[in-house]
Amino acid sequence: MQVINQGLEKELFNYLVHSIENTPYYQLLGVKIRLLGPGLAELDAEVSQQHTNPLGAVHGGLYMSLADAAMGNAVRSLGIMAVTVDCTTSMISGASLGETIKARGTLEKVGKNLIFASARVITGEKLLATTKGTFYRVGLIDINHGS
Amino acid sequence: MQVINQGLEKELFNYLVHSIENTPYYQLLGVKIRLLGPGLAELDAEVSQQHTNPLGAVHGGLYMSLADAAMGNAVRSLGIMAVTVDCTTSMISGASLGETIKARGTLEKVGKNLIFASARVITGEKLLATTKGTFYRVGLIDINHGS
Amino acid sequence: MQVINQGLEKELFNYLVHSIENTPYYQLLGVKIRLLGPGLAELDAEVSQQHTNPLGAVHGGLYMSLADAAMGNAVRSLGIMAVTVDCTTSMISGASLGETIKARGTLEKVGKNLIFASARVITGEKLLATTKGTFYRVGLIDINHGS
Amino acid sequence: MQVINQGLEKELFNYLVHSIENTPYYQLLGVKIRLLGPGLAELDAEVSQQHTNPLGAVHGGLYMSLADAAMGNAVRSLGIMAVTVDCTTSMISGASLGETIKARGTLEKVGKNLIFASARVITGEKLLATTKGTFYRVGLIDINHGS
Repeated sequence: MQVINQGLEKELFNYLVHSIENTPYYQLLGVKIRLLGPGLAELDAEVSQQHTNPLGAVHGGLYMSLADAAMGNAVRSLGIMAVTVDCTTSMISGASLGETIKARGTLEKVGKNLIFASARVITGEKLLATTKGTFYRVGLIDINHGS
Repeated sequence: MQVINQGLEKELFNYLVHSIENTPYYQLLGVKIRLLGPGLAELDAEVSQQHTNPLGAVHGGLYMSLADAAMGNAVRSLGIMAVTVDCTTSMISGASLGETIKARGTLEKVGKNLIFASARVITGEKLLATTKGTFYRVGLIDINHGS
Repeated sequence: MQVINQGLEKELFNYLVHSIENTPYYQLLGVKIRLLGPGLAELDAEVSQQHTNPLGAVHGGLYMSLADAAMGNAVRSLGIMAVTVDCTTSMISGASLGETIKARGTLEKVGKNLIFASARVITGEKLLATTKGTFYRVGLIDINHGS
Repeated sequence: MQVINQGLEKELFNYLVHSIENTPYYQLLGVKIRLLGPGLAELDAEVSQQHTNPLGAVHGGLYMSLADAAMGNAVRSLGIMAVTVDCTTSMISGASLGETIKARGTLEKVGKNLIFASARVITGEKLLATTKGTFYRVGLIDINHGS
């Protein structure tokens, strides 16, 4: 599936897509990038048996990982390198195996050092989880030298 | 490595260990159970390249997943089936590849419907993350019929 | 200032306005109700010297109290009595003395037992704080017999 | 009641006690300092009718304000000026009117820019709330020139 570029400068967009598609933790969980824009990222994952917890339901860690990834890449879409400081998630509903869950990460405020983000995880019209995250800026992305 | 039983009735202990060792999401992430006691669970994971984020550091999702798992199994150690409602994590330090990170989940209060838990993620003496979680009770574990 | 009714049945609206205007903690902090709708509440407070912390800035407790109040009354606007379970706030910017800060509480999901809400605290166009809250339903509001 | 000094240098201790006792928001809520040590603060408040919410119970904002104050002063006990970034509270039980509620704030990690703290709010042996907070350092306390 093609990744949608909703307004990013092409070089940054290509850099981020390549970086995300080669991120080991995303590959491990089956997380894929779908859309990037300035201060905006959407990633999704198809829920399968490998994501289930001892109750046979999707483990909360998947929602949290996906939401964190969406927020983190919303930050990166501004060319900012940052680390997650605080991440809080409410688990509202569960997804079923075979469904695709999507997290949309957006930014509330981009401060000098701290960046405040949020994400919603959905499947279709159904809200699965809401997340709020705080990030700490550690530098700028250098497209030419990786990271 | 043998799992430590710190005071659980043997049948429940064996049931939980077997259940955890066969949980797909834990297998996917490499999460292993190390200790169970009443209201207490310790799980760990050896950090490897597959857990890394676009910066090459361990993805926050791993700390959150491990902490959620430790809290969830601390709840299950009382024979309670519950789902995570809220989970909030502070990322304090990062682990290095090759290190084993351990989450210890404990319970603050076991109410009729809501259970309040917390977890600390460490490697050696170093504190990596602190987590607070709220769980909603959905039933009791039936050792004889699974879940 | 008149309280705006954005779609509540008149009896419930009047009941809630009267109840809020007579709530001691709101009176103590100077918190006033401005708008009620189904699943929606706006309250505000004029920031004054009495709200300041040891640094002379507005104490975070005021933002948290106002946000909690906005979420709690968004829940009550549906005729539901509930208690706050989890409340998490990010402090994004500070208000200045003399400014009026407003919290708008909305609902993400109204479950059988758990209700998920969020609030934004602003002054003018400036975002001061974002809050996420989880509430536990304890009953229904009985307009004729108080609470 | 005398404030306990559990190991702070006398000048800083006196400065902080004086500062806290003259903090308007604490006076408004009836919050009093009881103990200070390095990375440690205990404050309390006698719960009265003025703290009640529309249900007649203690408003969650009081627990959150008290917990934030305990964490903030635990930070200040190290001579650090900081602002709250994130604050998340679980409301576990409620206090009754006439009871004294106490928050104990401690520090998990003091980083260069970020400080991670937690607090527990109790009355007697009963746990009322647990809080986790992240603070951002803005400078050092200058005992001779206020703040």
